[in-house]
Amino acid sequence: MKLYFTPRSSATRPRWLLEELGVPYELVKLDFAQREHQTAAYLQLHPFGEVPALVDGDLRLFESLAICFYLADYSPEAQLAPSLGSPERARYMQWLIFAETRLEPVVKQFLNHSNSPEPANAQIYASLNHVLGIIDTELDGRDFIAAGHFTAADLVLASILHLANAMKLLEGYPRLVKYVYFHCQRPALQRAVTA
Amino acid sequence: MKLYFTPRSSATRPRWLLEELGVPYELVKLDFAQREHQTAAYLQLHPFGEVPALVDGDLRLFESLAICFYLADYSPEAQLAPSLGSPERARYMQWLIFAETRLEPVVKQFLNHSNSPEPANAQIYASLNHVLGIIDTELDGRDFIAAGHFTAADLVLASILHLANAMKLLEGYPRLVKYVYFHCQRPALQRAVTA
Repeated sequence: MKLYFTPRSSATRPRWLLEELGVPYELVKLDFAQREHQTAAYLQLHPFGEVPALVDGDLRLFESLAICFYLADYSPEAQLAPSLGSPERARYMQWLIFAETRLEPVVKQFLNHSNSPEPANAQIYASLNHVLGIIDTELDGRDFIAAGHFTAADLVLASILHLANAMKLLEGYPRLVKYVYFHCQRPALQRAVTA
Repeated sequence: MKLYFTPRSSATRPRWLLEELGVPYELVKLDFAQREHQTAAYLQLHPFGEVPALVDGDLRLFESLAICFYLADYSPEAQLAPSLGSPERARYMQWLIFAETRLEPVVKQFLNHSNSPEPANAQIYASLNHVLGIIDTELDGRDFIAAGHFTAADLVLASILHLANAMKLLEGYPRLVKYVYFHCQRPALQRAVTA
């Protein structure tokens, strides 16, 4: 298995998954400053020149969500995804998708627009608080977003909330800060962020 | 099963899936002009007040992607999703996600900005052609986007390309127009678009 990667990007999520699985993998680190993500060879793998991309034998995958779902199902005994046909699997998928398609864009928008004029900023804050409020309500009384145990949905959600926390966007959400610390102490994550 | 729905929206996709499955379902049609998608009761089901939302017994789902994946796996004999653990399943997921998260936003952006000044329009055209070109290459020599047979990835992709075609955005892509006509003649879709 070969993971195309840059540090401090969404590619840390599949790397964390690979560490949870304990399968051997090769990291291919792309230097964006050297435009290694824009070479003809890499654009064959990922048509948008982004990370992550994954190669597993003949399989070449380039959508972050698809890579996370693939790895979460890779080894059923790792229990990173609820079993097929269970209602918990549907909820797990919903929250993983929610984290990548609702939460992450608003956090990134905040990154890009933190110096915009006040009305635009107020709008971004409102979107952020709407999304964080939904997650906060869902996590009331539980440590896991779905299935009652750690899954790839927690891995992805905690990764994005960790970024939000580093940007000081979780100050009104002690439960979310606790959730980030709880999941980010997993040994597999510690291994996934080493050079 | 209960599907919250408005005609000519992305909620047609799960309705089409339900028709492919042949399972009984109840349609709850929301009148957006009457703001039925913004009632407190509906916002409990879908925190963004969008369609689709799905209720199946105790399960309540609100992400379009999650609903499509759930229904595609609902009945393995319908073969709307490749089996778990196959490489084709990863590709199927990638292309379904690609259709909803890469193609649909750019088509919708085009809807909203078709009267913008020229530079913005040129940028949107470039994004559109990039995404359409990727799909066009992938469909070279095949009728199905993954797995060698009809799956929910074709259903979602054909739905969005059908909208693009109605907006006259596929004029340089005869293969994509053929793909739309091929998949949109399925009897289940005909049933899904009746009142």
